[in-house]
Amino acid sequence: MSSWRDNLIKTEPYVAGEQPKGGKFIKLNANENPYPPSPMVEKAIAGFRAAGLNKYPDANVAPLCEALAKRAGVDTDNVFAGNGSDEVLALAFRAFFNSELPVLFADVTYSFYPVWCENMGIRYECIPLDDAFNYKAEDYARPNGGVVICNPNAPTTIGRDLDFIRSVLDANRDSVVIVDEAYVDFGGVSSLPLLSEYDNLLVVQTFSKSRSMAGMRIGCAFGSKELIAALRAAKDSYNSYPLDSVAIAAGIASVSDESYFADTVGKITATRDRLTGALRDMGAELPDSSTNFVFARFPGHSAVDIYNALKTKGIYVRYFNKPRIDDRLRITIGTDEETDMLIENLRRILGNNC
Amino acid sequence: MSSWRDNLIKTEPYVAGEQPKGGKFIKLNANENPYPPSPMVEKAIAGFRAAGLNKYPDANVAPLCEALAKRAGVDTDNVFAGNGSDEVLALAFRAFFNSELPVLFADVTYSFYPVWCENMGIRYECIPLDDAFNYKAEDYARPNGGVVICNPNAPTTIGRDLDFIRSVLDANRDSVVIVDEAYVDFGGVSSLPLLSEYDNLLVVQTFSKSRSMAGMRIGCAFGSKELIAALRAAKDSYNSYPLDSVAIAAGIASVSDESYFADTVGKITATRDRLTGALRDMGAELPDSSTNFVFARFPGHSAVDIYNALKTKGIYVRYFNKPRIDDRLRITIGTDEETDMLIENLRRILGNNC
Repeated sequence: MSSWRDNLIKTEPYVAGEQPKGGKFIKLNANENPYPPSPMVEKAIAGFRAAGLNKYPDANVAPLCEALAKRAGVDTDNVFAGNGSDEVLALAFRAFFNSELPVLFADVTYSFYPVWCENMGIRYECIPLDDAFNYKAEDYARPNGGVVICNPNAPTTIGRDLDFIRSVLDANRDSVVIVDEAYVDFGGVSSLPLLSEYDNLLVVQTFSKSRSMAGMRIGCAFGSKELIAALRAAKDSYNSYPLDSVAIAAGIASVSDESYFADTVGKITATRDRLTGALRDMGAELPDSSTNFVFARFPGHSAVDIYNALKTKGIYVRYFNKPRIDDRLRITIGTDEETDMLIENLRRILGNNC
Repeated sequence: MSSWRDNLIKTEPYVAGEQPKGGKFIKLNANENPYPPSPMVEKAIAGFRAAGLNKYPDANVAPLCEALAKRAGVDTDNVFAGNGSDEVLALAFRAFFNSELPVLFADVTYSFYPVWCENMGIRYECIPLDDAFNYKAEDYARPNGGVVICNPNAPTTIGRDLDFIRSVLDANRDSVVIVDEAYVDFGGVSSLPLLSEYDNLLVVQTFSKSRSMAGMRIGCAFGSKELIAALRAAKDSYNSYPLDSVAIAAGIASVSDESYFADTVGKITATRDRLTGALRDMGAELPDSSTNFVFARFPGHSAVDIYNALKTKGIYVRYFNKPRIDDRLRITIGTDEETDMLIENLRRILGNNC
């Protein structure tokens, strides 16, 4: 006789960065933005008419999609919005990857991709990046059920140009190609201009990083009307109303404030470049980052030891106990003050503080 | 050669009530609450510290689960919260229904259940309610991969007592039994007291109806620690952070205001009972409702004709073009004023206005 316990889910979940509670600490382990969202967001929330919450929100998040469409120069029917880019990506996997052929993505990339495949019974193949963590376009020129490229890639921080994306698209006229641009605003090159040429391209972005709104859960996707219609069908087969009315209002407010957005991104990239220099001065090896984090190895030192030593100082960074990357740390760009604290502690830990 | 178009999702989506836009209308088609949420909710949103939105919310929605646990007299580990009860139910299907045997639910019940099964490749069997739309416990005493009971049931409005739920649970020691209590606060009997006896029972509730928060997207579930852990694993295999920080604060505020909750529910049930009497006076046939809507047939009249006639008057009710229920209308309980307008128009349409 089987028990209900035998039939519980067995998928190995995605593991997010620790969320330390209480006390003073510096949290550089979840690629969060150290700055608050635009003051327009604060205003939108403070002025939100709560009385209207008795009604369901717009199921297709039309008001926010309109604002995003206008900014991207596309139609509203080319835009989808959901509960964080994780939900948008999950729905995209469900909407597009229904072939018997494996979906292709890198071995070192966002580790939620294989989790979604396992969750939904989608075949997949992880294709090794080269030794310098670069994608090779020719690796994606084989029969497949879909392609997912993270650009700039996480956790490697490396961005690729449109020639690369175009090569992947040209080799994949018969598959949907998802370009996950969670970090694109920090120095990557967006594939949005390719939308008019490729109706099998979906570009996914998030409000969690460059817009300082991880706590508001907003993700979005841009694609052909056919792809967006399929995404909406996937949503309506799972959860019809993914974004609440406050999030919609807050999202619109964020999109309206272009100058705050540019300022914040500028501050973070400046701090990142300073941190990159300081790390290299300490002997660390890391690629130039196109994201709001760095991915560094410390020759002669153990990454997990540094991770633990920083933790005792109240500084949380991300260590992955995984092949190929267990000699590295992923460190989010914090404020200048947080970054100074990080540099100071790292120097001490590495014994370079003389 | 296959095209990417061949591999797009083919699930037939759930269809929600129309969302008419602009102009003046009376919306009685989505079982929304006609009253605003508690003033405490308004206060929580107006006072929300938007600067903190740069950080991810608590992935397990712990602060809200604590408030819900306290109210229900259970531990926080017995509570799950998600993006509306639709998401909670979808995750529960994914977390619990992984057997080869069919999941059982009624033929006339919430029409999202078969959609989730199709979406996730779960076998299912729809079991006919009896001619008066009653569940029969013996129908659920057969080998199965899970059971879903909607209590009170939608769209039938009929609630069942704990003896019935207990019979279903006693016949299903080896399956997870989900009791969907979306409407329970309007006069149903909650299965929460049975949680201490049955570790295979999951009770799902929502903030969208009795708490007037459809626009805030909050659903929750109560169950054994094992079931809640499996639900969290399903969440972490799909979308780690389902509730945004504003929704969490607003949800806690709603739960804190017990008297507003009781007042609102009291007003709606009083209006419902008045509407029920008025409908019966017009010759309509409908069961006593334990929900915030009624489900009526109008002997000698066509339901779809009445639906269309009401629509021309700006009154939206719900008509289902489905076997067994296409002679009925589902009408949400509005304010007293809205209900008066509905009654007046219905009398006119039915020719009883002399």
